[in-house]
Amino acid sequence: MPIRPSQVPSQVRGLRARNRRAIMTAIRNLKHTARVDIARVTGISAATVTSITADLVAEGLVEETLDGAQERSGGRGRPRVLLRVRPDAFLIAGAKISTDRITVTLTDYAGEEVAYHVEPQPVPQVATAVEVARHLCLAIETALAGKGKSLAELASVGVGLPGFIDASSGRVYWSACFKERDVDFRALLTSTFGCPVSLDNDANLVALAEKWFGLGRGVDNFIVVTIEHGVGMGVVLGGKLFRGMRGIGTEFGHTKVQMDGALCRCGQRGCLEAYVADYALVREAGAALGRDLSCPMTLQEDLDALFAAAKAGDRVAESIFERAGRMFAMGLANLVNVFDPNLIIFSGEQMRYDYLYSPRVLVRMRQLTVVPGRNPPEVRIHKWGDRIWVRGAAALAMDALAESDASGSARDHEHLTPASESLLA
Amino acid sequence: MPIRPSQVPSQVRGLRARNRRAIMTAIRNLKHTARVDIARVTGISAATVTSITADLVAEGLVEETLDGAQERSGGRGRPRVLLRVRPDAFLIAGAKISTDRITVTLTDYAGEEVAYHVEPQPVPQVATAVEVARHLCLAIETALAGKGKSLAELASVGVGLPGFIDASSGRVYWSACFKERDVDFRALLTSTFGCPVSLDNDANLVALAEKWFGLGRGVDNFIVVTIEHGVGMGVVLGGKLFRGMRGIGTEFGHTKVQMDGALCRCGQRGCLEAYVADYALVREAGAALGRDLSCPMTLQEDLDALFAAAKAGDRVAESIFERAGRMFAMGLANLVNVFDPNLIIFSGEQMRYDYLYSPRVLVRMRQLTVVPGRNPPEVRIHKWGDRIWVRGAAALAMDALAESDASGSARDHEHLTPASESLLA
Repeated sequence: MPIRPSQVPSQVRGLRARNRRAIMTAIRNLKHTARVDIARVTGISAATVTSITADLVAEGLVEETLDGAQERSGGRGRPRVLLRVRPDAFLIAGAKISTDRITVTLTDYAGEEVAYHVEPQPVPQVATAVEVARHLCLAIETALAGKGKSLAELASVGVGLPGFIDASSGRVYWSACFKERDVDFRALLTSTFGCPVSLDNDANLVALAEKWFGLGRGVDNFIVVTIEHGVGMGVVLGGKLFRGMRGIGTEFGHTKVQMDGALCRCGQRGCLEAYVADYALVREAGAALGRDLSCPMTLQEDLDALFAAAKAGDRVAESIFERAGRMFAMGLANLVNVFDPNLIIFSGEQMRYDYLYSPRVLVRMRQLTVVPGRNPPEVRIHKWGDRIWVRGAAALAMDALAESDASGSARDHEHLTPASESLLA
Repeated sequence: MPIRPSQVPSQVRGLRARNRRAIMTAIRNLKHTARVDIARVTGISAATVTSITADLVAEGLVEETLDGAQERSGGRGRPRVLLRVRPDAFLIAGAKISTDRITVTLTDYAGEEVAYHVEPQPVPQVATAVEVARHLCLAIETALAGKGKSLAELASVGVGLPGFIDASSGRVYWSACFKERDVDFRALLTSTFGCPVSLDNDANLVALAEKWFGLGRGVDNFIVVTIEHGVGMGVVLGGKLFRGMRGIGTEFGHTKVQMDGALCRCGQRGCLEAYVADYALVREAGAALGRDLSCPMTLQEDLDALFAAAKAGDRVAESIFERAGRMFAMGLANLVNVFDPNLIIFSGEQMRYDYLYSPRVLVRMRQLTVVPGRNPPEVRIHKWGDRIWVRGAAALAMDALAESDASGSARDHEHLTPASESLLA
């Protein structure tokens, strides 16, 4: 039976906490490992490794196995005792909230996916925070039920959603998914799930996922631009996620590209999103598709029809995508002017439409940057679906768990090696 | 006679170099100090302090004095030997290049200003890099001559200028002061002056000056926006100057605020500068001032006339400043969206015109940020003149000197405590 964090002995602080954490990470990364190897890779004394791993075994976080390889090879002497993370020590959920669905992954403590579930909303809508929390709970419960598990067995939950999220306080200042503004969503979810909840802007989770598992592996500085229903950004600076000076910066979709411009979902005018997001394209589609949008198909169907019309040469439809591309190029150029990146990763499911990353858009981006003669940043396209977003969320939750276990604070999870790189599967 | 860096014994690397540097900084900051106090504040062993300070004295960088206070107070035993920086060990120049003048400060090695000189250009113009270098040389020579000094006595030169500057390579990709693009200006200046030259974007030097001497003292994260002939930005992140991921980022004046908008000096369209800089205002002034601008007064006179007309209630003149203010608010809001700063400092001589920081502009900036309900960043106005810019340049030069002395590299000067806080005078 999984152990809940509250059952873990009182928090161990300071040096021992850091050592404990380093040892736990080593065991996780090395999969099956001997104490002597843990001491080697962590630089922690053998005596301390022995003492701390004894605690971890006693607490049920780590288990001992015999070195099967040595037995099979007929090695003499006692078989070595190896350590590994106990997969069933904790059950972790990662979730991504969108306006039209909630996607959930469940992983074990070793980082292996146990279940994956998508809970659609029949009618996409902006709901109250309580309704979203209920929907999220339903999605996670459904994922759990498929494996004969219940909410009470969850040790940690990580959630990503679009909008202006303060990861440190867990507040949602604004999200396209919520009717209200300024919601203490983490508190709401913590009371719903009864376990630690980590919350972050969804694009930040993609940036973390790119850093941990994807195209940002081994790259210290890069920008991730996510294109889904909206436009998001995550910035990695010096190997760490940069959330802005006060915690909710690196906003891209709601930077202004036109004074007094098109109305955005956020209520302001001239936001980049109001020109390039799917809803922005579809609201102009009536003119191109020549039909009454008061009797709409779904947003997706409208967008697909508009895209097909443009590809078939419809000039009006073309002009909609063309303007979106030019606005996007202008927004990207401003990012390049400010951050001077070497690498920009475009990530998200909307990447199936090429209007935002056509060669023409990238050429225009270069023309609008301040040093057009210099090497432009490399732009890479990553057509990851929801799976990687929710795995980013699960990794965030696992790190928060490790952090709260080791030091009682979940603030610095972005500074860490991911708890489990095997989340990539 | 000043010692040139080439006379300093071969470069001392590694730990000893770091210790040497820490000791030099301590002596400078503590003004007159005993070896025992240096050991205390640096945490370096007394033996190492004794050894390294002996080197510094032998090299003429530091000199011994007796503790006059102890003598006067009739203290018993031997008077303590104190150490201080030898002011005449090095002579340092800091300069700011603008299109209409070059401003120079000379400081001694203790950071005290020795001379200050402004060399105007009779006819403001865009010149070749060689002409600008000659003008700079003339300005510095004039400052030196006033003190009976010559170029040969300069140990280090720091230069700030507007534009797209790579501080690490010393290249000027574009500057409003140069006719050409992509100039290795540092190499040109190094051959002109025969001593190390540091080059940086002028707004970066203001950010460093604010961090070292000004409103950014003790603040780890802030943004400086400079408003002069153009619009510049310097960003301090985690106590360090952030120059972008590849070294020439944090560009603000040439981010685009209008697709296919007004033509900018840089050759592109829609740059913020093309709406808010003095030249942008003046080129619209004909309509308001009702006179033929083909026979112009100076830019400054035109701007003053336009400003006076607006203040006197001329609607056309008002509308010019009003639009500039709205564009500036939009640009600022985008900075807030990206960096989420707690503090923005407006700095520069153009601050005498209030159109860019009127309450209306700041209210509009807040309205355009993504979380209008949250505490907006504090905006502080700093009407520093050229003096602080060139002192920032001199401090940069002094740090480069200390760095080249200690490790042979001038790359990391922004990470350091300023070589001399007394540059503020």
